[in-house]
Amino acid sequence: MRRSIATVCVSGTLDDKLTAAAAAGFDGIELFENDLVVSPWSPRQIRTRCAELGLSIDLYQPFRDFEAVPDTLLRANLDRAERKFDVMADLGVDTMLVCSSVSPASADDDELAAAQLSMLADRAAARGMRIAYEALAWGRHVSTWDHSWRIVQRADHPALGLCLDSFHVLSRSTELDDIAKITPGKIFFLQLADAPHLRMDVLQWSRHHRLFPGQGAFDLPEFVRLVLAAGYDGPLSLEVFNDVFRQSDPARTAVDAMRSLIALEGRLPAAPDLTGHAFTEFAVDGHSGPQLRAALRGLGFTHTGQHRTKPVELWEQNSCRIVLNSAVTSPGAAAINAFAVASADPQRSLQRAEALLAPAHPNVREPGEAELAAITAPDGTSIFVTGPDVGWRADFLSTGVTPATGTGLLVTDHLGLAQPFDHFDEAGLFYHSVLDLEHLATEEYAAPFGLMRSRAVANPDRTVRLALTVALLRRGEWAPAVADPQHVAFRTDDIVATAAALSVARLPVPENYYADLTARFALPEDFVAVLRRHGILYDRDPEGGELLHLYTPVLGGRVFFEIVERRGGYDRFGEANAPVRMAAQRHRRLSG
Amino acid sequence: MRRSIATVCVSGTLDDKLTAAAAAGFDGIELFENDLVVSPWSPRQIRTRCAELGLSIDLYQPFRDFEAVPDTLLRANLDRAERKFDVMADLGVDTMLVCSSVSPASADDDELAAAQLSMLADRAAARGMRIAYEALAWGRHVSTWDHSWRIVQRADHPALGLCLDSFHVLSRSTELDDIAKITPGKIFFLQLADAPHLRMDVLQWSRHHRLFPGQGAFDLPEFVRLVLAAGYDGPLSLEVFNDVFRQSDPARTAVDAMRSLIALEGRLPAAPDLTGHAFTEFAVDGHSGPQLRAALRGLGFTHTGQHRTKPVELWEQNSCRIVLNSAVTSPGAAAINAFAVASADPQRSLQRAEALLAPAHPNVREPGEAELAAITAPDGTSIFVTGPDVGWRADFLSTGVTPATGTGLLVTDHLGLAQPFDHFDEAGLFYHSVLDLEHLATEEYAAPFGLMRSRAVANPDRTVRLALTVALLRRGEWAPAVADPQHVAFRTDDIVATAAALSVARLPVPENYYADLTARFALPEDFVAVLRRHGILYDRDPEGGELLHLYTPVLGGRVFFEIVERRGGYDRFGEANAPVRMAAQRHRRLSG
Repeated sequence: MRRSIATVCVSGTLDDKLTAAAAAGFDGIELFENDLVVSPWSPRQIRTRCAELGLSIDLYQPFRDFEAVPDTLLRANLDRAERKFDVMADLGVDTMLVCSSVSPASADDDELAAAQLSMLADRAAARGMRIAYEALAWGRHVSTWDHSWRIVQRADHPALGLCLDSFHVLSRSTELDDIAKITPGKIFFLQLADAPHLRMDVLQWSRHHRLFPGQGAFDLPEFVRLVLAAGYDGPLSLEVFNDVFRQSDPARTAVDAMRSLIALEGRLPAAPDLTGHAFTEFAVDGHSGPQLRAALRGLGFTHTGQHRTKPVELWEQNSCRIVLNSAVTSPGAAAINAFAVASADPQRSLQRAEALLAPAHPNVREPGEAELAAITAPDGTSIFVTGPDVGWRADFLSTGVTPATGTGLLVTDHLGLAQPFDHFDEAGLFYHSVLDLEHLATEEYAAPFGLMRSRAVANPDRTVRLALTVALLRRGEWAPAVADPQHVAFRTDDIVATAAALSVARLPVPENYYADLTARFALPEDFVAVLRRHGILYDRDPEGGELLHLYTPVLGGRVFFEIVERRGGYDRFGEANAPVRMAAQRHRRLSG
Repeated sequence: MRRSIATVCVSGTLDDKLTAAAAAGFDGIELFENDLVVSPWSPRQIRTRCAELGLSIDLYQPFRDFEAVPDTLLRANLDRAERKFDVMADLGVDTMLVCSSVSPASADDDELAAAQLSMLADRAAARGMRIAYEALAWGRHVSTWDHSWRIVQRADHPALGLCLDSFHVLSRSTELDDIAKITPGKIFFLQLADAPHLRMDVLQWSRHHRLFPGQGAFDLPEFVRLVLAAGYDGPLSLEVFNDVFRQSDPARTAVDAMRSLIALEGRLPAAPDLTGHAFTEFAVDGHSGPQLRAALRGLGFTHTGQHRTKPVELWEQNSCRIVLNSAVTSPGAAAINAFAVASADPQRSLQRAEALLAPAHPNVREPGEAELAAITAPDGTSIFVTGPDVGWRADFLSTGVTPATGTGLLVTDHLGLAQPFDHFDEAGLFYHSVLDLEHLATEEYAAPFGLMRSRAVANPDRTVRLALTVALLRRGEWAPAVADPQHVAFRTDDIVATAAALSVARLPVPENYYADLTARFALPEDFVAVLRRHGILYDRDPEGGELLHLYTPVLGGRVFFEIVERRGGYDRFGEANAPVRMAAQRHRRLSG
């Protein structure tokens, strides 16, 4: 199907928006009136520019507060419409969106609405145009799709049809199955937007918090299925009002938008199973390298391999693998520069990534080295996709060092990746679609330096988990550097034994935390005493699953390690303890 | 009265928060449980630290979901309370806040609630403590202050009283007069927060959008008057949950908070009348200076004066006065470095500013020069307060240049000041309290680089107006430099004549804008033709007042000039046209 995007979805002037939409591969646009009004280009120039870019203009929008009004107002509204038809003729667009009225001047009178919309459709038809009538969720008298459909049926005019907007339809959660029964040809336009479930005024929800399909909570595949069942064959068109997208780089946002449609359409190479975290790579320098090496030793890791051709070290403990890369510049602070996931079929994983606009680029390698292609995540991290075995280890020469006893760390449990503010929702969709990781719960919590949002993604058997976090407001100058760290969490089956075996600095946990923990969870004193002794934090989910975990301080400027023990099916990340960690990391930073 | 602040109002760890509260002059704090839990200090250490800083701990908060529960839960809740009493004893705090329950386990049973709160009060009294019961606006069964008061009356326990929180009371807009009739001594604690009127879920409104008194829409002076009439003599304590304050510099936020209480108490030197904008000063350098001089000449200004001792020029046209200061560094772009307002009593204006924590600092001057003291606005701009005459002009030697004919610019109409993201609400309160400017409407609008918020402040006769703007989200890397400019608007009585007399580059206005204008306002074609010819924009308010205005392009990187003609009592700033301006300034920047 053709793919369109409303100009309101992205930031910038009309020029910025058209350039971004074309570069991302869209076929067409919905032109918002405001974007035209502020443009120095005439409607004809806009038409030419769109044609040069290979973009059709699929909809002119919106025309407001038209129907069911007294006669004098009707005449003014028809005059107003003629002016817009003039603009549309110059633009070469044939469909005008008319939203259900929010005006106090409109009457609750379906017959009057239908009659007046017919008159408008007459005028449109005379110019070879047509009217798509849409029920706004906050329309004064018409606020549901089925009500707008009754009016369109009553008008029974060939140039009058429906515009269905998934937000307006799904935010009202009316009965949907009848959408499939709409007369073929009468859905003139389909607008798609996702959204999180929010308890708020629906207009504010719509104007500020829409998301691209797959980034929210709506069942868009089912909605689109119903619309297609009604014979709709126009474009899938995104209409997303989002405060963040409105101010972020339009080129990035347009790619994110296109990815959402590709994923929604679903004609993709099936995602192979992921079988685990293969390794995590840190970029280190002369300052951070020694800190990370010392910490890894203290955690029971052994420097087992040295890359054949690059200044890259492999550190291992059971299936936990860390790579320290001194060849990559990481100005100022250590960072997770790359991570690798193991796939049952790496080639197909990469094909899927490519289809989702995340093309793989080959790793620079010497003859005889493993072919590891990387895709780039929204935060710039490289993601390698390895096979389920560890063939890539052949690139490392054995150091011959006898492996340390270890401390019981078995496998990488998850990565914690602080995301850039503008790309949090993009990241969620990226991991969901490209790696087929499912969204776990999104959480918001108060932390010492502002509110935080976290969203975890994981594969079905939980051998790959990523915890994505972002500040609810873009950080300013006040936030300390430790506010947005990245980390690797390793899993143990016995955190108390592991803790006793560690020889690495642990993040101190306040005594007040344990006092509160005892009161909150009614935990036995001796159990809390053990937690306290080892600096272990605790969380419990409503089903009784438990997390025991501990942290290192921040190392090399921006990273830390975590050790977790999951009990009883605990499937979260101890988000409730993140503020404790952040405060402690701040204190540690101030004092040490 | 004593002044307190809840630790939740400001960003950082407990250490950051206490330091900020003490530096701003608060007498006490409300200690939030989370701030204690994440602190490395024991309760006794916190008590000591507060004592060192001269801060009392006035309230420990909150204790949740206590009352009207089944017996087994009651016992657990009482045990939980005893743990918190232990903490309170160590902290040296005697009042615990208990919020009305939101738990499904609680019953709608006032008698049970009163009986159980009595039991809790017994336990508190045994330790010399007391319970302040507060109706949350979203409490499950108890959500209004009068309901909580009925329960407290029914319990009739000396250690049980009310906590009144202005947000919970005023967001429900229940009848308030009876607050004055609450039995003296039974209001144990008073929490103050302001908020804008928002159509949203009350919990979200409360948790994210509270403001300090004077920054929102609540009538807090009347509320406080009623509480004091009931004999309350405890602290005025701020409890403000605000997403921005939670992540901005706590030292700044605490001063803003203290200013809000000082202004609320109102024992201040009366604000003298302001009589107009005296001058606006730009910091210029070798790059921006020539651009601004050329523009001023083109606007009909004359370089009339040269400062006796500094590289500072005075440019004038009628009562419009611009100062170009080459002695101040302004890295990268010209900026409004200072502005001067004329006061009927400058000395008293400065005393008032000082009382509101905006101390005046003397301008560096030579003998014989006018004494101009400056106060610093939240965005760093210096504000000079001159007398109603123009005695300060004696500091400038006449250039002897014959004044140009001028273009009809009469007086400075307003300044447009883009505010730093973290300090928008602070700025509104600052100008309102320090200069006694009233808040005009707050507007939000979509602009090419993201959503914008504007708030104007003005004196009663509108001889001083400031239009403050801020991006709804802190700008990121994508936003172009022209997104947050500053400007001076001059007023004319005849903008068409003025426009014809100008010899300065005007910002081009898109033809599409005029086509839309004609449709929107049903304006006569010949009128629109005149607007079009001169690049004049148009706005009309609901009462029929009209604004005609035009802009220059951005000059010297970040500033521009505007010319306005107000007709029929138009009292706004043409915010509807700001997106047109921003897009044109962006295009101008790209192309020229």
